[in-house]
Amino acid sequence: MEYRIEKDTMGEVQVPAHRYWGAQTERSRNNFKIGPEGSMPKEIIEAFGYLKKAAAHANCELGVLSPEKRDLISKVCDEIIEGKLYDEFPLVIWQTGSGTQSNMNVNEVIANRAHVLSGGKLTDDKKILHPNDDVNKSQSSNDTFPTAMHIAAYKLVASRTIPQIELLRNTLKQKSEAFMDIVKTGRTHFMDATPLTLGQEFSGYVQQLNNGIRALKNALEMVRELALGGTAVGTGLNAPKGYDVLVAAKISEFTGLPFITAPNKFEALAAHDAMVELSGALKRLAVSCMKIANDIRMLASGPRCGIGEILIPDNEPGSSIMPGKVNPTQPEALTMVCAQVIGNDMAVALAGSNGHFELNVFKPVIAYNVLTSARLLGDACESFNHKCAVGIEPNLPVIKRHLENSLMLVTALNPHIGYENAAKIAKKAHKEGKTLKEAAVELGLLTAEQFDKWVRPEEMVHPI
Amino acid sequence: MEYRIEKDTMGEVQVPAHRYWGAQTERSRNNFKIGPEGSMPKEIIEAFGYLKKAAAHANCELGVLSPEKRDLISKVCDEIIEGKLYDEFPLVIWQTGSGTQSNMNVNEVIANRAHVLSGGKLTDDKKILHPNDDVNKSQSSNDTFPTAMHIAAYKLVASRTIPQIELLRNTLKQKSEAFMDIVKTGRTHFMDATPLTLGQEFSGYVQQLNNGIRALKNALEMVRELALGGTAVGTGLNAPKGYDVLVAAKISEFTGLPFITAPNKFEALAAHDAMVELSGALKRLAVSCMKIANDIRMLASGPRCGIGEILIPDNEPGSSIMPGKVNPTQPEALTMVCAQVIGNDMAVALAGSNGHFELNVFKPVIAYNVLTSARLLGDACESFNHKCAVGIEPNLPVIKRHLENSLMLVTALNPHIGYENAAKIAKKAHKEGKTLKEAAVELGLLTAEQFDKWVRPEEMVHPI
Amino acid sequence: MEYRIEKDTMGEVQVPAHRYWGAQTERSRNNFKIGPEGSMPKEIIEAFGYLKKAAAHANCELGVLSPEKRDLISKVCDEIIEGKLYDEFPLVIWQTGSGTQSNMNVNEVIANRAHVLSGGKLTDDKKILHPNDDVNKSQSSNDTFPTAMHIAAYKLVASRTIPQIELLRNTLKQKSEAFMDIVKTGRTHFMDATPLTLGQEFSGYVQQLNNGIRALKNALEMVRELALGGTAVGTGLNAPKGYDVLVAAKISEFTGLPFITAPNKFEALAAHDAMVELSGALKRLAVSCMKIANDIRMLASGPRCGIGEILIPDNEPGSSIMPGKVNPTQPEALTMVCAQVIGNDMAVALAGSNGHFELNVFKPVIAYNVLTSARLLGDACESFNHKCAVGIEPNLPVIKRHLENSLMLVTALNPHIGYENAAKIAKKAHKEGKTLKEAAVELGLLTAEQFDKWVRPEEMVHPI
Amino acid sequence: MEYRIEKDTMGEVQVPAHRYWGAQTERSRNNFKIGPEGSMPKEIIEAFGYLKKAAAHANCELGVLSPEKRDLISKVCDEIIEGKLYDEFPLVIWQTGSGTQSNMNVNEVIANRAHVLSGGKLTDDKKILHPNDDVNKSQSSNDTFPTAMHIAAYKLVASRTIPQIELLRNTLKQKSEAFMDIVKTGRTHFMDATPLTLGQEFSGYVQQLNNGIRALKNALEMVRELALGGTAVGTGLNAPKGYDVLVAAKISEFTGLPFITAPNKFEALAAHDAMVELSGALKRLAVSCMKIANDIRMLASGPRCGIGEILIPDNEPGSSIMPGKVNPTQPEALTMVCAQVIGNDMAVALAGSNGHFELNVFKPVIAYNVLTSARLLGDACESFNHKCAVGIEPNLPVIKRHLENSLMLVTALNPHIGYENAAKIAKKAHKEGKTLKEAAVELGLLTAEQFDKWVRPEEMVHPI
Repeated sequence: MEYRIEKDTMGEVQVPAHRYWGAQTERSRNNFKIGPEGSMPKEIIEAFGYLKKAAAHANCELGVLSPEKRDLISKVCDEIIEGKLYDEFPLVIWQTGSGTQSNMNVNEVIANRAHVLSGGKLTDDKKILHPNDDVNKSQSSNDTFPTAMHIAAYKLVASRTIPQIELLRNTLKQKSEAFMDIVKTGRTHFMDATPLTLGQEFSGYVQQLNNGIRALKNALEMVRELALGGTAVGTGLNAPKGYDVLVAAKISEFTGLPFITAPNKFEALAAHDAMVELSGALKRLAVSCMKIANDIRMLASGPRCGIGEILIPDNEPGSSIMPGKVNPTQPEALTMVCAQVIGNDMAVALAGSNGHFELNVFKPVIAYNVLTSARLLGDACESFNHKCAVGIEPNLPVIKRHLENSLMLVTALNPHIGYENAAKIAKKAHKEGKTLKEAAVELGLLTAEQFDKWVRPEEMVHPI
Repeated sequence: MEYRIEKDTMGEVQVPAHRYWGAQTERSRNNFKIGPEGSMPKEIIEAFGYLKKAAAHANCELGVLSPEKRDLISKVCDEIIEGKLYDEFPLVIWQTGSGTQSNMNVNEVIANRAHVLSGGKLTDDKKILHPNDDVNKSQSSNDTFPTAMHIAAYKLVASRTIPQIELLRNTLKQKSEAFMDIVKTGRTHFMDATPLTLGQEFSGYVQQLNNGIRALKNALEMVRELALGGTAVGTGLNAPKGYDVLVAAKISEFTGLPFITAPNKFEALAAHDAMVELSGALKRLAVSCMKIANDIRMLASGPRCGIGEILIPDNEPGSSIMPGKVNPTQPEALTMVCAQVIGNDMAVALAGSNGHFELNVFKPVIAYNVLTSARLLGDACESFNHKCAVGIEPNLPVIKRHLENSLMLVTALNPHIGYENAAKIAKKAHKEGKTLKEAAVELGLLTAEQFDKWVRPEEMVHPI
Repeated sequence: MEYRIEKDTMGEVQVPAHRYWGAQTERSRNNFKIGPEGSMPKEIIEAFGYLKKAAAHANCELGVLSPEKRDLISKVCDEIIEGKLYDEFPLVIWQTGSGTQSNMNVNEVIANRAHVLSGGKLTDDKKILHPNDDVNKSQSSNDTFPTAMHIAAYKLVASRTIPQIELLRNTLKQKSEAFMDIVKTGRTHFMDATPLTLGQEFSGYVQQLNNGIRALKNALEMVRELALGGTAVGTGLNAPKGYDVLVAAKISEFTGLPFITAPNKFEALAAHDAMVELSGALKRLAVSCMKIANDIRMLASGPRCGIGEILIPDNEPGSSIMPGKVNPTQPEALTMVCAQVIGNDMAVALAGSNGHFELNVFKPVIAYNVLTSARLLGDACESFNHKCAVGIEPNLPVIKRHLENSLMLVTALNPHIGYENAAKIAKKAHKEGKTLKEAAVELGLLTAEQFDKWVRPEEMVHPI
Repeated sequence: MEYRIEKDTMGEVQVPAHRYWGAQTERSRNNFKIGPEGSMPKEIIEAFGYLKKAAAHANCELGVLSPEKRDLISKVCDEIIEGKLYDEFPLVIWQTGSGTQSNMNVNEVIANRAHVLSGGKLTDDKKILHPNDDVNKSQSSNDTFPTAMHIAAYKLVASRTIPQIELLRNTLKQKSEAFMDIVKTGRTHFMDATPLTLGQEFSGYVQQLNNGIRALKNALEMVRELALGGTAVGTGLNAPKGYDVLVAAKISEFTGLPFITAPNKFEALAAHDAMVELSGALKRLAVSCMKIANDIRMLASGPRCGIGEILIPDNEPGSSIMPGKVNPTQPEALTMVCAQVIGNDMAVALAGSNGHFELNVFKPVIAYNVLTSARLLGDACESFNHKCAVGIEPNLPVIKRHLENSLMLVTALNPHIGYENAAKIAKKAHKEGKTLKEAAVELGLLTAEQFDKWVRPEEMVHPI
């Protein structure tokens, strides 16, 4: 490979000749060979595109950057946002905890790419832009990286994760409505219980997802606050007055999302509680999805030796050895994602709790986990929706058989003959393998007519 | 010990003669010898007091319970709420996952105590109230236990945890204001950085706690929704129409807290996502408190070989072997509590994710962890406030020495001589053990006058 | 309440007149009102009894403590070990992270109780023993508290938790052997699969518990190493040469357990990785027990609308509203405990990761969680054993019906007609609601005789 | 893109024309668009190479596969092991929880590649090998996937992770020996304490890593047990007698690692406790590394306002805004990895606890997390070793200054003047800003000569 020489304050570094990145990026590449190259999430890189563009505009508007430099920076930022320069960001998550070299990676790529766009060569001694003095003007890694985290997380969750979860929520809502009159046995403690309708059962899932989306939105209210303008330690040193408000407005304008400047920059650099909260909201949804997916696979279990009250789509042969087997593979993928999201939340909590003084230096691991959780959970909900939820159908014969057999219909007799007498009927029926009606009449506690009048499953699914 | 014979639908049981509990409580006592007796949180018992009273009132108002029975039940409930009958609740957390026997414990105690209050004897065959048919009327364990969880959690967090955290928040705010002009060195990556004021540093803590309290309040919005009225599986079987709304209003009236009936009872029985969310909000605060307490103890470290920029109260001899040693014991207690709260949150997530069909049967473990976290975190914040935060003072001589020595004051020169020249000064000063000014002048990059004009720590703590 | 005045190096303190504890204990009581009083685990107090006695003996043998003082200290330690002085230890978990005041609590109680046993009064100015100079001789909180943690954890796990788990393991082994010839349908992905025997299914549980016990024993190998002799920072300052080995031998002698001195005292004070490992082993067992308990409750589900292949004991009425309902309450208690143990493990990991320099100051929270997990998991396994596992019986009619219906018996045909043809049979049978034999013969892929010869469930439970 | 038609038991599927994979792989590709394509860890694919080759050899040796087919399969397996076919494995982690389609992906690639190697075309109707009947002979996804998990995890940990940790352990050991006589102040509770040597401090780190490696090796003892031979549910249906032992021996031979057949196949399919244990051991090491890395960064803090007792290499400019700043970036990367490993452990525990009946269907998420943790932790230790640990040097002037200033040297006086008098000296020195000697003499508790004789830091680092 061919190299060129780049310099930073520590001296010279060999950099691949054709790459836009500079000395500091190359140092980090060499210093951190941990996991696969380029693992810094691409959402972070894109967010830096918006951020650097907004900073250039704000700096120009406040008179500390020329319009020419602003336009040059903006041009490259647009390329970054469009994903055109993605190969220029080779750094890993597992670098400095402030993400400094990823910030410098962006600064260097913008400076060098702008130089080339302006007709210069990468080997030129003097470049048209300085990565620190121009591109990073009025900024520090300490406020840019958390800003990029918030931009990336907000955008991903608002534009992708929430809509993906809503897809599933909507399907479950349709199913709930479609199944609202299908009376079936309930199950508590995994044991037969009083009846409800299949639609009622599904309505609980809808409520879970609605509440979870609400929690996500609550968390986004904090994530929309941006650290930018705090610079090195939160004081805003070397940033012009009014810059923080203006740059947030620019980011909001360029992304179309409601970002504002954080009310307290010290908190915004030293703590990432907003991301901890967002991760917690994702975990809450993972907890919900785990329940929903488990229910679906258990309700669909069988086909002959399980519960079997619903049918789910057959998407692939289920077994490499058992012919004709079909498995609930979508619920399985979703529950695996849920386990990951819950684990990620622990990593985020631990990272979030370990900030010191003016900086939390677990930024990349926090960003990685929140973005991964948001992406996986959204994708898994969408996959579960398309390949499973939309195709769920009731298995009416089984539902009917179970309902008729259930001993817990006896509960309808409580108001008429009391809990203890009702229990006698259920126990006799269970022990002797009889129907409730047979047992009831044999015990002389009521007549067959009374039984038929009082024990009506279809009336047991609503309050008296 | 003397015993009397009690009966339930499974037969006879020997119960301690003088105890108000009945057969089902005694069965559970014998069946679950896991951990210390009586571990079911007392907040749950108290909540059941409100709940049973509200149910009796609602049942009466809806015409399914006599005013006499209502009054009898209410009377015992008042005793329960006042904590007079606490020894009558011997059951453990680690029982059935629905808390059924704790519900029955309450039903039995109310029925038997009412009988005695009415002049009866515990050994009477016929009692004035039936635990199931009267006290538990229009209820199931499946809707009462989650309702008690919500009442207990809401009350504890709203009336105790939040005010306790606010105490600390207020103290930190006062300190922040008092220390607003004390300029000190900043620290990022645990390394010397540009200056800020001690008050600015503390303002970040205030923001953290404010945001955390906001998250708690958001979570309480879900916790105020009550499952009661769903009965066995969420359908409201055997409850009169309108009962759910009315009973929530009664609970709200008796507790003075804004409870409402849950919009979907199926979710309210089968999932405890609201508690998962509340636990997550407590975890978020634990993450914040971990950071704050760590900062305080590190800032107070020394007295001679540490950072030593603040002084905290000496509360006890710090060492059984090192004479005169004083330790940051309050931050230690608080950080230990934070570790516990984060661990508890994982237990809650796991428990919350494991519901099946119409019921989550990890109710007691969820209640226990949320209540424990709320209590510990609140108590620890109050203790930290009273015994540490209120007494924090700046250690001005050390703050001054550090500030003057810090090489990162060089950052103020960036706008004047550029990042790279500024770096040369800092590196030279570091290498040669000189002051920045000496190094700057020796390098010929600026004059001593310029240095004095440009490098003013007290001006570096605000935007330009 | 009456008080007497006690003194320590910080001055005078009012102490309840009749209590043996002194000034430092009282300070801690007042400084840490977090959670219920006296929460420091009693196993830790007992362990301190062994430790202080051993230290007195070692000090005497090495010539730095008189035989009279040794005997006095030993006498009180014996009382502590017997639990006679339990009310004298009022401190909470949430105190200083080194447990210093709990160490001083022990020192003070021993000194004062010894004085009284020797005929003195608590109000005497001069006591026969000094809490620091005599009782704490050759010790620091920094090495005593971790030693007490290890003694307590080893003793609890070795003498209680492991035997309790072995009880369950033995029962499951007996069941496995008793059920070894009961052929039933297997289930993978919660779907019908090829058959196995009920005994084989249970043999997996036995293996899980055996492996878990092995992990516990591996962890105990580290826990048996004791920090004592490291004193303040691990160097052994103020302890006589040879003391560490001797005092460990004394502890081993008094407890009857194989304790040895830790090979590196710096690690033993500054890190509690041995406890982290023990907690991890308990978590591993919790993961296993969660699986086992879930299987049992799902296999026992029904009675009429579930899987219903086993019967478990009916221990209590299952529902306050559904008469005659019986629930798998023991599996529920066990799985709740498992959730707690997994959460506790996270608290321990977090606490373990936060040591600094020469000391980890999360000792009490680590001790509390490990001891709680060990106690709960052991108790829950014993409860599950006595009240559930020993009573498990096969539900033969259901097992037979499921086995005969299972389409996955078709797998036996793979070697004869190939996977694809076998799949055709299964799919046809499923679609048309037929038996496999009917479908096979109709498809002309084999004769009825061949089917009967090749598809023999009882032969499918072993390799060819 | 061009396609060809492939078939499985569910019908026809379009597959990219030039790909070796078949219908089932393609179905899974389409059904699971969750996260980036091809995320199934490459270590799993490699492990399948060993496994399928071993199975072919064992099948041949037991007379159920021809030598020709064995050789064909082996040939492709060798290509897989060499990484030549890596692009043929496009499936994601988030698929069916049994990894069935990844097993089929391997089966299909081997069958098709073998066909091409034998001169056939991918579009031929009849292939030389059948993916199920030949390549998957005597196997099921249910036993192959866990076997691949164990092979991959064992190989990675034994051949990479442990040696990487040992690198760091060895460096720390060398440092410990080199620094063994450098006396410095100790720190407990982050406060000045009695002295130790820098080498002693580092010896604790060495012990931590040694104990952690021991835990990894203990866990590997379980991981070396392989599920293969259990087939669909653990019974070994359709596998020849003796196959399990033989195939494990073949895998051991081909990998050079000590694999054996699992003693109980039911456990090996239905539970992944061995992986849970391995993850727990990695977590234990993460806890240790978090402590070590925190210590290193805190000891290196400054350069002028921190603790500053050691110097670590300057690897990159530390700040984009603060010129000349150098940060402890390697400790930061390592601690971020530790947070991830601890989070991953939680995901594994949750996944491990959710197995049902004969199968745990969280296999891919378990494999992914264990492999990721092993890779990241190993890489981070190696990076930390090369770029930080090897370059650690003592900062002698600071060490000397701190040591001389420390008030905790007073502890050496305990045996001479008692704890209380010693405390008086320390408190006076602290309050009046004096040296201990000055305070001691002023208090008249000892002479200057006695002080010099008794307070010798270099003698305080060993027992008396």
